[in-house]
Order: sequence, then structure tokens, then C-alpha cells
Amino acid sequence: MLNKNKIIVNFCPTGMIPTKNITAHVPISPSEIIEQTHEAYELGITIAHLHARDENGIPDWNPGIYQKIFEGVRLHCPDLIICGSTSGRNFPEFEKRSAVIDLKPDMCSLTLSSLNFVRQASVNEPHTIVGLLEKMVENGVVPELECFDLGMINYGKYLIDKGYLDGPYYWNLLFGNIAGFQATFNQIGTALSEIPKNHFVALAGLGADQLPINACAIAMGYGARVGIEDNIWWDSKRTKHASNVELIKRTHELIEINQKEFFKPKDLGELGFYNRHRNG
Amino acid sequence: MLNKNKIIVNFCPTGMIPTKNITAHVPISPSEIIEQTHEAYELGITIAHLHARDENGIPDWNPGIYQKIFEGVRLHCPDLIICGSTSGRNFPEFEKRSAVIDLKPDMCSLTLSSLNFVRQASVNEPHTIVGLLEKMVENGVVPELECFDLGMINYGKYLIDKGYLDGPYYWNLLFGNIAGFQATFNQIGTALSEIPKNHFVALAGLGADQLPINACAIAMGYGARVGIEDNIWWDSKRTKHASNVELIKRTHELIEINQKEFFKPKDLGELGFYNRHRNG
Repeated sequence: MLNKNKIIVNFCPTGMIPTKNITAHVPISPSEIIEQTHEAYELGITIAHLHARDENGIPDWNPGIYQKIFEGVRLHCPDLIICGSTSGRNFPEFEKRSAVIDLKPDMCSLTLSSLNFVRQASVNEPHTIVGLLEKMVENGVVPELECFDLGMINYGKYLIDKGYLDGPYYWNLLFGNIAGFQATFNQIGTALSEIPKNHFVALAGLGADQLPINACAIAMGYGARVGIEDNIWWDSKRTKHASNVELIKRTHELIEINQKEFFKPKDLGELGFYNRHRNG
Repeated sequence: MLNKNKIIVNFCPTGMIPTKNITAHVPISPSEIIEQTHEAYELGITIAHLHARDENGIPDWNPGIYQKIFEGVRLHCPDLIICGSTSGRNFPEFEKRSAVIDLKPDMCSLTLSSLNFVRQASVNEPHTIVGLLEKMVENGVVPELECFDLGMINYGKYLIDKGYLDGPYYWNLLFGNIAGFQATFNQIGTALSEIPKNHFVALAGLGADQLPINACAIAMGYGARVGIEDNIWWDSKRTKHASNVELIKRTHELIEINQKEFFKPKDLGELGFYNRHRNG
């Protein structure tokens, strides 16, 4: 990361798993997602990592839903960096996963290998990863390089070596999945040692690992991914569900205590994170 | 690993990828596999990790082929620890992958998550992993815990915590897959720090990583997995194909230079690695 005093706040309000039955705080409809992203933007976020849901709250790839969300977010948060999800957990077909890229958000997620979650495999074939990446590059979209383990970092570097992507490079390292790297200093340090020095990195922790990972990331000058997508609880004892606004507020308290500042979206955007078709 | 002076030599002569067109040295037919395993046994190996091929050299799950191989190996190498593959790369169905377990070899391989190889995903759903493990335990088979990255180690420890398997515990850490952990001291050290102290561990390197990983493993007192399954070349410049016998001989030279001894199959077997139905 180039400037260790400026903390990228990557906001992930929805994801694919939380439902209203799981936590009332999760935003599901486009208007809820727009509203909560707007609130978070007012508090200070750099990137919004967004997933679409259908009318029943089921994850959906439909570009019509994504378009509604992106337009609303653009209206209220004009300089925010918008990242769309290409996750294939519920719809593996390339056409569905890649449809969001046609909307030309600033960034899209790119998971760099297949992996297991606790109940289910998430399959990302090498040719799918390369196809998504090529489509992103064609559309001026910066990939969010999603890594759940060391090998995904290696595969990302392999794609860079092969010339599939130019910079800027943004890595999101997610710790604490049952079959991924874990939230220990040893594993975090080993993972970070594999990321080239001039690349941007944010750290995420799943579930109860979100708070300590965010706190460590901010303390050490790395970006922090935070939101209900990764963690629904306010506290490790699970006495209270967190709202996205509360999570963002706590993130800013940590940034302040650590004598850092948050990375303003415009400042990051001007380093190459805005879609190059954005003003076209 | 309990005794750092005794090196487990885990022999992997065939695998799923090498064909006679790729290297003339790879044993394909049951008689070739039996013969090369017997030669390696005479030189000194602890475990034979075996894959079956059909008449055309294609990986096969057919228990008839495995039975022929196992019977021949038992005849010539009576105390050798035999490990059968449950890989699902070519046949994902549980019934096919698990058929080899019914033959009650001493060990069977168990890959602990889904992952990508360079051209293809290898899918191991959580319920498949648990199902294979339960069938192994029922049949007195010790799982060979195959890990290509940190998260697989974590998932193995999770299964142990959940009570799915008793000891003895044997981990095979394979370094150098494009989307797995890499053959660096940092990554090897981080991986090994996650393995409980009293568990057995062997290290494997894919391709050109086989020799340095074997050399480091032997130097530090860990087991070494070696054979054409993981590496077809004698030298990093790829001037000469290796034979399995040559690879085993070099392994013993390293063991000798490092003032270690090889772990005799009987000694490891008596620590719980023989199938408990073996004499029944």
C-alpha cells in the first residue's frame, strides 16, 4: 500500500448469505442498499462492494437490479468507487456472472481460485477467472482481487506476470474461512509478504474475525473491508446484531485512535480506480 | 513428527497426469506399478501412494485394478504401507471415488478442500470429504491428509476437533501448485507451524519444486513424498526424464548425507498405520 496513513474503507453491506431472518439490519432491496451506502458514504467510505438480490432476497445476477443500485448510489455518492460482485456461488454460468461488468462499474470482484466454504464448494474454473478478467479489462473495470488463501495470491501474481491486467492492483485478503487462511499474525504476515510493495491491500475477517482484522489492518496502515456481508454481530459474544452504520462508525473510531485518515474515494479514484468510461 | 531422525519416504510413482507419451518411465499397468514399487521397496520406502489406470492409461477408479495392484505389492513388499487414491479429478461420483476404500488398504488419500490446478478446478465438496473420511474410519483406513494450502490444514484440524478421526495423523503438504502454497521458507514455515506437534508430516513439491522440497524436508527431519506423480524430470533444466528408481536413490543419498535414517514401513505400521483389518 502506497500511503500507510490513508485507510481504504471497503464497505460490504449485503453479500449473498444474510437475510432479513438472519439480521434485520441487512439491506436487500435496491433502495435499502442505496440508502445504507449513502449513510456510510456520509460517514466516510472509499469503495462500496455491492451484491444484488431479487424480490425474495435471493442473490441475483440480473443487470437490471445492479443498474438500479448503481444509478442510485451514483446519484447520492457521486465520487464513490463502486464495485460489483461477480460471485458464482448461486449461478455458475459465465454469462450471468459477467453481466454486471457490462454496466461498467469502477471495479468488480474476482475470486482467484476454487475453494470450499463450510457447507459448499465455490467453483471458479481457471478459464472462468481469465474470462471475467479479460471482460473487466475490456470494460475499463479494475478487478478486486479476492483471496481466501496463499495460493490465490500466487495465481493473481501469475495472471499479472502473464500480462492479463495492468495496474492499479487492489487485493482483498479475507481471513477466517474454514478452508482458507486464518486470522493469525503468522498467516497475515505470510500473506502480506507475498503482495508486491506498491499494490493496494485491504484485509477482511469473516464473522468474529472482522473486528480484530479491521483493527489490525488500520493499526498497520492497510485497508479495511467492513460490513454485514462478512459479519452480522456487533460483539464476539453475539448479544447484538450490528448495523452497517455502527460498523462504519467503529471503523472511523479506530482510524482516529490510530492517528490515520480515511482514503477519500476521489483520491483513490484519481489513482486509476475510476472506470475509464466513467466520464465518457 | 515424532522422531526427526527417521524420514518417511512416501513413494508416488504414477499419479493421474503422466502418460507414456510424457515420460517412458511412468508405470501404468498393474504389473509395471507392482514392479516399480517393488524396486523402490528394495531401496527403502515407507509408504506407496498408488493410483490405478485403465488399459489405455486413463485414471480409473475400478476396484478390480486397485485390487490387482494391491495384491501384487503385498506379495512382494509384505510390510509396506499401501495408500490408495480417492482423487475425484476424473470421476466425481462418491461411489467411484470411495470404491478403493472397500479394499481396506492401510491408507487412502483425502484432499481437504476444493482447489484449482493450472487448467482445471478440482472439486471436493465438504460433504464428500466427510463421507470419504467416515468410510475410511469404518474400514480401518488411515487418511493421508492432503493439503495444497493453509486452509486445508485448517479444515483438517476442524475435522479432528469435530471427532471425525482418531490418530495416527498423517499430513502431506504439497507445495508449488499454481493456486496453492509455494515452496518458500516463509510459506513452508507457516504451514508447518499449523500442524500439531505430535502429528506425522511429509512434504511434497510439484515439478521443479520436488527436489528442493525433498532436500529441505529431509534436512529438517520431515517426511519426503517423491516420485513421477509429482515430477517427471531429473534436473531443473529438464534435460532428462527421471525414473522412479533414480528419484528414490537420490532421496536415500540425501538421507545419508543428512545423517538420518529412513522410516521402515514396519516401524511406522506398528504406530497405527496398518489397516486394523490387515491381519484379520
